[in-house]
Amino acid sequence: MIAAVALQGLPEISSDDDLAALIQAAALQPENTELHDGDVVVIAHKAVSKAEGCVRRLDEVRPSARAQQLAEELDKDPRHVQVVLDESSSVLRATRGVMICVTHHGFVCANAGVDASNAPAEGTVILLPRDPDGSARGIRAALRAALGVSPAVLITDSFGRAWRHGQCDVAIGCAGLSPLDDWRGRTDSVGRELSATWIAIADQLASAADLARSKDGRQPVVVVSGAERHIIADDGPGARALLRPEAEDLFR
Amino acid sequence: MIAAVALQGLPEISSDDDLAALIQAAALQPENTELHDGDVVVIAHKAVSKAEGCVRRLDEVRPSARAQQLAEELDKDPRHVQVVLDESSSVLRATRGVMICVTHHGFVCANAGVDASNAPAEGTVILLPRDPDGSARGIRAALRAALGVSPAVLITDSFGRAWRHGQCDVAIGCAGLSPLDDWRGRTDSVGRELSATWIAIADQLASAADLARSKDGRQPVVVVSGAERHIIADDGPGARALLRPEAEDLFR
Repeated sequence: MIAAVALQGLPEISSDDDLAALIQAAALQPENTELHDGDVVVIAHKAVSKAEGCVRRLDEVRPSARAQQLAEELDKDPRHVQVVLDESSSVLRATRGVMICVTHHGFVCANAGVDASNAPAEGTVILLPRDPDGSARGIRAALRAALGVSPAVLITDSFGRAWRHGQCDVAIGCAGLSPLDDWRGRTDSVGRELSATWIAIADQLASAADLARSKDGRQPVVVVSGAERHIIADDGPGARALLRPEAEDLFR
Repeated sequence: MIAAVALQGLPEISSDDDLAALIQAAALQPENTELHDGDVVVIAHKAVSKAEGCVRRLDEVRPSARAQQLAEELDKDPRHVQVVLDESSSVLRATRGVMICVTHHGFVCANAGVDASNAPAEGTVILLPRDPDGSARGIRAALRAALGVSPAVLITDSFGRAWRHGQCDVAIGCAGLSPLDDWRGRTDSVGRELSATWIAIADQLASAADLARSKDGRQPVVVVSGAERHIIADDGPGARALLRPEAEDLFR
């Protein structure tokens, strides 16, 4: 059985909060079940970004000429567009009010993950963490040190998709988890090769966790149990392993 | 809490099997928990396709000149390529051994969903169901008639994604479920508008369910509980509502 349960009782996260310590404290409260070695602690990235200070104030942003022109075309705040450009290594599409960007980490997503919803204050926007795999490793190490158990840690964001409406949560950072389950070369129930089966476990865990929380931002952490077969002792390759290199990509 | 549990004891599905009756019989076995109104019965499409006879024998396929040429370019069986073309309304990409197709339903996926793994016999391939939303409605009605409860029904396939490695399960048919949860216009925890938040619930349920089963094909049905707030009394718009129309799509 796979079970996903939102962690209750976390406070609103602010800059310089010790997120691992807050998770650890919440996990010890009686309304939550204990954390175990095989669990996955799934964290909406905004909590990580806020704790790490990955927030920008729009009144400190000076939009470039390019940002001003894009903002006019897209009917957006030029300062917001400038922040998106700052977070992007390239822009794949800029049309109909949306920018589809490649972030400096290599993620392809709308607005390079820059978002005003659930931001800490009016006039601020939240960025993706600078190194989400590193953030996951750090939180995992801190939980292990504090609690004596070593759950996997997964950091997520909600990404739109080509061809389909709506967003699904996906992994942007992870530690202690095999992000992909490779069945290529293994066989099906009648011994036929599963030539293409390569499952994005970390993304499926992100989506499962999102179902267990509310979108109003008060439940950034969900604990998923039952995925023990994907848990590993070392930190593993991280969510970086999910990135399809540009040279192999048919849609950019 | 969201919980996903594979249904135990289903037999291998064959053509003309009554899939709803098999699910109903399995659900009454002591090793499984009872089905309830708020549950989602998630079915890997191959079980539906096999029961509906959506299977083709390659020795009955005559490849066209186009199929033969594509097969040579892609190093594939020309009869397999012909079946993919038969299932497609258009082909977006055909390169590096892969065809990214738009199916007659409007799904964008590799090989139009045509797959040899877990096929009923050597030399056969499995197609997507002709009308997966209709299949979901039919199975839902049959379960309701037989068991007196009305769970939602979700039919899934594993789709690759642009930009990211690996596959995630997504919804190709559903009944009794709101496939999308629209927060656009609603507000976050501090009252700011969630301008773009529109969650692909049906796809996230598909991914959550996939985590609870093995890929060897013996567990095509997973029951997800805890998603009651997305369950609806009528059949709803189906997974068709998840399709982004070509005119709104930036990547085809």
